[in-house]
Amino acid sequence: VSFFDCRWVEAPGHVRELGDGATLPAGFRAAGVACGLKGSGGLDVGLLVSDSPRTTSAARFTRSGVLAAPVLVCQDRCDLGALRAVVANSGNANAATGAPGFETALAMQAAGAEAAGVEAPGVAVASTGVIGVQLPAEPVTRGIAEAARALDPGGSRDFAAAIMTTDAFEKRVDLEVDLPGGTVRVSAQCKGAGMISPAFATMLCFVQTDAALSAETADLLLGVTVKRSFDRVSVDGQLSTNDTAILMCSGESGVRVEPESEDELRLGEALDATLRQLALLLVRDGEGCGRVGRVVVTGGDPAGVQRVARAVADSPLVKAALHGGDPNWGRIAQAAGMALPGTAPLPLDIWIEDVQVCSGGQAVPHDERALAAAVGGTEVEYAIGLPGAGAETELFFSDLSHEYVRINAEYTT
Amino acid sequence: VSFFDCRWVEAPGHVRELGDGATLPAGFRAAGVACGLKGSGGLDVGLLVSDSPRTTSAARFTRSGVLAAPVLVCQDRCDLGALRAVVANSGNANAATGAPGFETALAMQAAGAEAAGVEAPGVAVASTGVIGVQLPAEPVTRGIAEAARALDPGGSRDFAAAIMTTDAFEKRVDLEVDLPGGTVRVSAQCKGAGMISPAFATMLCFVQTDAALSAETADLLLGVTVKRSFDRVSVDGQLSTNDTAILMCSGESGVRVEPESEDELRLGEALDATLRQLALLLVRDGEGCGRVGRVVVTGGDPAGVQRVARAVADSPLVKAALHGGDPNWGRIAQAAGMALPGTAPLPLDIWIEDVQVCSGGQAVPHDERALAAAVGGTEVEYAIGLPGAGAETELFFSDLSHEYVRINAEYTT
Repeated sequence: VSFFDCRWVEAPGHVRELGDGATLPAGFRAAGVACGLKGSGGLDVGLLVSDSPRTTSAARFTRSGVLAAPVLVCQDRCDLGALRAVVANSGNANAATGAPGFETALAMQAAGAEAAGVEAPGVAVASTGVIGVQLPAEPVTRGIAEAARALDPGGSRDFAAAIMTTDAFEKRVDLEVDLPGGTVRVSAQCKGAGMISPAFATMLCFVQTDAALSAETADLLLGVTVKRSFDRVSVDGQLSTNDTAILMCSGESGVRVEPESEDELRLGEALDATLRQLALLLVRDGEGCGRVGRVVVTGGDPAGVQRVARAVADSPLVKAALHGGDPNWGRIAQAAGMALPGTAPLPLDIWIEDVQVCSGGQAVPHDERALAAAVGGTEVEYAIGLPGAGAETELFFSDLSHEYVRINAEYTT
Repeated sequence: VSFFDCRWVEAPGHVRELGDGATLPAGFRAAGVACGLKGSGGLDVGLLVSDSPRTTSAARFTRSGVLAAPVLVCQDRCDLGALRAVVANSGNANAATGAPGFETALAMQAAGAEAAGVEAPGVAVASTGVIGVQLPAEPVTRGIAEAARALDPGGSRDFAAAIMTTDAFEKRVDLEVDLPGGTVRVSAQCKGAGMISPAFATMLCFVQTDAALSAETADLLLGVTVKRSFDRVSVDGQLSTNDTAILMCSGESGVRVEPESEDELRLGEALDATLRQLALLLVRDGEGCGRVGRVVVTGGDPAGVQRVARAVADSPLVKAALHGGDPNWGRIAQAAGMALPGTAPLPLDIWIEDVQVCSGGQAVPHDERALAAAVGGTEVEYAIGLPGAGAETELFFSDLSHEYVRINAEYTT
């Protein structure tokens, strides 16, 4: 199975997927170990290190008003343009844990610095799991030391496993990317299945390349591609306290990517496709997800287009209809109306899988049998036309299933 | 079982509940008939009439940008301060039905005027049911004529049944209210189980009194009490295209309620308790609802307090935890943080059923066994303290259950 397996994400021609045995890009090593945070005994502490002193990096975080301790440490105590290592754990988010939690995150950073042989500000910290429970520092720092001994260029799979929580499958890829200046490598490890949206969500994503980028270029590329990927998905409309995306560039390939060059454009295309596909995997692995929806909204008002897309993607009624394979487009009209109060009568156009069901706010006759068949697939596309033109957005979202309820009604107990 | 059966709504001492045989307040008659809109053959057309020419009234409607035809007719073609009749149907919302739908709503209004012997602007129209399907005018207008022949002071139960959709139980009450100027009657019929929030939702509510109020006083009382009741509930965070609340005052008791009088205060208290209890019944009958939550948010910023209450009440993670009897308060912190982006670190206080679980943004040790027992009841109260003081709000919300998914994944198919 190819990584790029979705009709909504085009794999660029200059990108090649590598097989199972691929190592990380030159300069990187990773490991994942078990320190006992997960009741299952599964891998729960990950360490990712770049051995190159000229490594550049960029990072993006959740916009929540309740920031987890590891996010605070990243924002306050890291040189985000020159990260050399990431320490991450699953099983506990270290969020709503106050000063003791902040101390634990600092201890993780210090253990990571020791493990990677770098200064503390070069080490990012990321956590995911239950909120409001103190993360015990001792097993985690011990796990980081153990991971340091296990660091390996082939450690990507274990690292990815160590950041998974309710994820049903791993979200990971190793790519070769042909740039005009030479061929570079890109690898990425990602997790996320719930508490996803409206920003990129808990959702951790780590991307490595051996291309040589300035920290500014890395920041630009990560910023643009995160906006088009992790910012455009919703599982449950819930913004996590811990969302983190980090791009690290070792430069070990010797291929320099200069600002506004063809190399930058091509690498950007590769990152864009990679992050969009990973974002889609988050939705596909959304807790209890059976079907994935894509809503495309066009119109003249950029803010209105965004609001309608969010309202549709987050609507439990739309999501339940998606789950049931029910072409109940009235709920799409309802969600759009809710997003744009006081605009009635709204001349709304709605298509489901290219079948127009509503024109100018009014139901239109259509082939109901064809529509019922179209919404029975694993991916369903909704298009909404608002008045005017020039603005467009898309959002990917999961359905609402019995399984989502089961997972989330039984989480901590 | 008393109508006022919830610890969160106090029944005023001057309000008495009447038994099953109670008629409507003096001047009112109602009926409900079956015209074939409901596949089940159940009652689906309701007619409510005041025989008093001095009847005053007030109305409130959804703020959706996608307004159903009956709402457009009410807003554009009614004298909302002097309504004499209501025609209502279930089984079809007459929403997203364009000009033909508007004509059908006008035909319902005309049939209602004929039935009540009044001018068309004195007749309000309300519909609830599926969106985006043309409502056939003929069976409905025929049903209205049939209902006219069945009008009766004891017709409240049939009228209430005729406006129900996925409602599992009727939401209806008949009261006697002692005012300084004399005793008056209040009756109310309400429906709603899904597409509930953030404004009062499909949600129809009709209230009758034989007190004599000016249209301005009726409007003031309805406006204030709707804001404190139907505006403060959420089943699924979805705003309907059809929400309608109408208060009609026949004046037939001879008791005048003057502005800013003790009579107005007492009648307002009675309406307030009645509408709050009806709003609670909407939540309790929320699709698939097993447990009802109440969130109270205090702080210094009125807008922030509102946003946090909505975010908590609408969060599928909080709702699923409520369903599972899971004291997972981290999701409350998450929802609050999502509602207030960029405010970290937020010194959040959280209590569940008076057990403090978070102080100043940090988990506090608590009796987990007592907490687990407290969230196992049918009603769970959450309190959230934000920085500052002076602002406070409450919201009632349902849980998210397997049954909600089942109902909404199988609705039209």
